[in-house]
Amino acid sequence: MTFPEDYKDRVQKINEQLMHSFDVIQDKNLKAAMAHYPAAGGKRLRPLLATIACEAVGGEPNTALPFGVALEMVHNFTLVHDDVMDEDQTRRGIKTVHAAYGVPEAILSGDALFARAFEVVLDSDTKDHDLVKLVEILARSVRLLAEGQQMDMDFENAKNVTSDEYMKMIELKTAVLYQAAAQGGAICGGAPKSEEKALAEFGRLMGLGFQIWDDVLDLLSDEETFGKPVLNDIRNGKKTLVVVQALEDLKGPDRTELLSTLGNEKAPKEALIRARDILDEVGAIDHATKVADGLIKQAKEQLSAVKDSKHKTALMAFADFMVKRKT
Amino acid sequence: MTFPEDYKDRVQKINEQLMHSFDVIQDKNLKAAMAHYPAAGGKRLRPLLATIACEAVGGEPNTALPFGVALEMVHNFTLVHDDVMDEDQTRRGIKTVHAAYGVPEAILSGDALFARAFEVVLDSDTKDHDLVKLVEILARSVRLLAEGQQMDMDFENAKNVTSDEYMKMIELKTAVLYQAAAQGGAICGGAPKSEEKALAEFGRLMGLGFQIWDDVLDLLSDEETFGKPVLNDIRNGKKTLVVVQALEDLKGPDRTELLSTLGNEKAPKEALIRARDILDEVGAIDHATKVADGLIKQAKEQLSAVKDSKHKTALMAFADFMVKRKT
Repeated sequence: MTFPEDYKDRVQKINEQLMHSFDVIQDKNLKAAMAHYPAAGGKRLRPLLATIACEAVGGEPNTALPFGVALEMVHNFTLVHDDVMDEDQTRRGIKTVHAAYGVPEAILSGDALFARAFEVVLDSDTKDHDLVKLVEILARSVRLLAEGQQMDMDFENAKNVTSDEYMKMIELKTAVLYQAAAQGGAICGGAPKSEEKALAEFGRLMGLGFQIWDDVLDLLSDEETFGKPVLNDIRNGKKTLVVVQALEDLKGPDRTELLSTLGNEKAPKEALIRARDILDEVGAIDHATKVADGLIKQAKEQLSAVKDSKHKTALMAFADFMVKRKT
Repeated sequence: MTFPEDYKDRVQKINEQLMHSFDVIQDKNLKAAMAHYPAAGGKRLRPLLATIACEAVGGEPNTALPFGVALEMVHNFTLVHDDVMDEDQTRRGIKTVHAAYGVPEAILSGDALFARAFEVVLDSDTKDHDLVKLVEILARSVRLLAEGQQMDMDFENAKNVTSDEYMKMIELKTAVLYQAAAQGGAICGGAPKSEEKALAEFGRLMGLGFQIWDDVLDLLSDEETFGKPVLNDIRNGKKTLVVVQALEDLKGPDRTELLSTLGNEKAPKEALIRARDILDEVGAIDHATKVADGLIKQAKEQLSAVKDSKHKTALMAFADFMVKRKT
């Protein structure tokens, strides 16, 4: 099977369950704010990963659907709250929740999304022992996501961020949910401990690769393809692996010029492009791309613990997609 | 046993488990923000209720301690977020979390408190089937709390709020956690379904009584005893049962005068006192007190489903305390 082309029906099913999960919410405003991002679409990578991991260990994909949908809800809840914290006004072409509904509604709807995610998992037809494990993964993931967001906020004011610190941050802020998806999917599929562990590591590694590639896309893509403004990370002074690596390697006027543009919200487009070129010339974009590719390779090696099947092949394609995608 | 005097050691134990639950948090700022309210003390009514309900059905109180602590964490998480939404700068004599640490930290630490609450429950030595029920109660409670906070926010802009709407709001915003405490405690104690149901209803009714009495205290107490500014609800235009009832009954100049003071942040102290006197003279304070007393009476009647014991006596005293307390 190829990814993601062969999973269009499944994405539709995920979307149905996702939107259906808001039916229980009584208040119209609260419901609308909760559904604001989910209704705007998305690739649904986390639910897809959960269901395909479930199949790869011999399970029926629907058994992992509630857990996958819950992860998507958690992902959306963190987007809502992060956007408030970062004071971002738009996300992928639509107003952020707080821009559309106000900060109180954004905080509240995020909380409700999080609570509802647990209910969705618990609603599923899974035996108690596995439910406990799934809920543990969900709770632990959000606690770690909060630590990751904290690191990300600290980076904004940090003079110096090492590549190790960057990797730790994206592990917490991004990889944790992919790890949860693959591990939870394996649990739903009744995987033995060895396969559950290998799939958890598969998810973690591909999550890391995903995030580094996301940072590269901000530099290499054009706005139309990427679906959001490019070179934004430079404007916001985001300490991505590309930037962290470049600052470790650069000396002299190039370093000075890069530093003067990083985080300068008023930097003209030419300065942003020049900064991108500096990052390119010092080899930092190439370095990050290689790191991402290496992580995906390592991720795929984990799959040797899982029996060959078309679903395992799909997981391989999934991992490759993480660093091939243009959006 | 008398309440709360005989439970000082237990409160200390609750506080230890509560503060201990933050040990796992790596980031110092995040940990400090999470612990800000819990470290400031509190009556720990929800954990106390959980553990005494557990004893009243024949259980060992420690088995309900993690669930009780989790409820206290959820309670604190909602305080942190509600304070951001309401833009309150102080809470019971200390700075609110966002006033002390900033809005982003307050949102994030609230999220982390919520996530950690689930982990604390799951860490407890309870069989899987009961764990699933406890987690379900916790998730459902937070979803309903969010609906209650939404109603409360809507009330601020509502021209007319009925006493039915007010009761629905405090059911969601306050009673839900007391219901959860008593029901969860019963589950931890291995109660049969009939006792679990009766205790859930006991908690719900005493939670309603608690909130109505809280609103009355704002009008009758002095700042030193109450531990927070009094007549604040009038200044903030809060639609309490007292106010809602008074507006249903009042006509003429008294009504006009009350309406001109309600929600007037610049109202002088004399105007606030005059508004309080109007509420008193129309019988609305007395009415609310009677409603609270009636709810506590109904709550205690639920306990007929539970065998007599000193713990049942303690629950009776607990219920009475809800409308006798001065703070």
